[in-house]
Amino acid sequence: MVEPKPCPFCAIVEGRVPAHIVLQDAHSVAFLDRRPLFPGHVLLVPRSHRATLAELTPGDIGPLFENAQRISAALERGLGAEGTFVALNDRVSQSVAHLHVHVVPRRKGDGLRGFFWPRQAYASEDEATAIAAKLRAALDADRDRSQGRT
Amino acid sequence: MVEPKPCPFCAIVEGRVPAHIVLQDAHSVAFLDRRPLFPGHVLLVPRSHRATLAELTPGDIGPLFENAQRISAALERGLGAEGTFVALNDRVSQSVAHLHVHVVPRRKGDGLRGFFWPRQAYASEDEATAIAAKLRAALDADRDRSQGRT
Repeated sequence: MVEPKPCPFCAIVEGRVPAHIVLQDAHSVAFLDRRPLFPGHVLLVPRSHRATLAELTPGDIGPLFENAQRISAALERGLGAEGTFVALNDRVSQSVAHLHVHVVPRRKGDGLRGFFWPRQAYASEDEATAIAAKLRAALDADRDRSQGRT
Repeated sequence: MVEPKPCPFCAIVEGRVPAHIVLQDAHSVAFLDRRPLFPGHVLLVPRSHRATLAELTPGDIGPLFENAQRISAALERGLGAEGTFVALNDRVSQSVAHLHVHVVPRRKGDGLRGFFWPRQAYASEDEATAIAAKLRAALDADRDRSQGRT
């Protein structure tokens, strides 16, 4: 048997590796990122090992993101942040294969331009129409599947 | 009386301004960003005008982010994305004052480095300890308040 690759976030959740934990409840654990964008940058993870967004059950999602909301408010009240950036990289650019939501304190003029470049309009209205149709079809197929109609 | 500034996302939700809508339900509406990072970049908004994350009620959060999960899956199945980026700017860098979750299709090597620069470790363990303590205090105060203990 091949030893499964150890998950560094499971190790934190289970208390095997130390971290600056700021919140924990039955569903999730939040701790300081060791290499923050700005001091106070928090990583919020489900207690159960879920690699990707798709692996979260509907019942996981509300409690997880309610904690993201709480952390965002705490960054404002506790650290004087003027706003926050809440983000997750799913599969691509995901450095640890245990879903983690970044909650990052922001201040105006902090130099974080975020991901808002380079953006450009669709080449044509037809292109946008075609893409929206593909997405709606995928969403409809998903709904049909979840309702057992396929 | 001063006319309130019209909200462009409420205008889309209410059907007064056209958009490429990809999903709508009782809670939220999702449509193509007109200036996408990559084609298929979706904005997901609550139907009700909520300016910030703090204005979402706990009951709003699960249904909203469950839709983000659905859209993320649809970008993979419908457009061949290899992953997604799910993010919201709260107050700072928030271009429209109606909460919106970006769901962006990603591919390996797509050039989006995202927000992962410049990151650096805390200057000292003491600094991290102090910041974590402030955050825990703010989260505890929030919990006490929500339980009517203040």
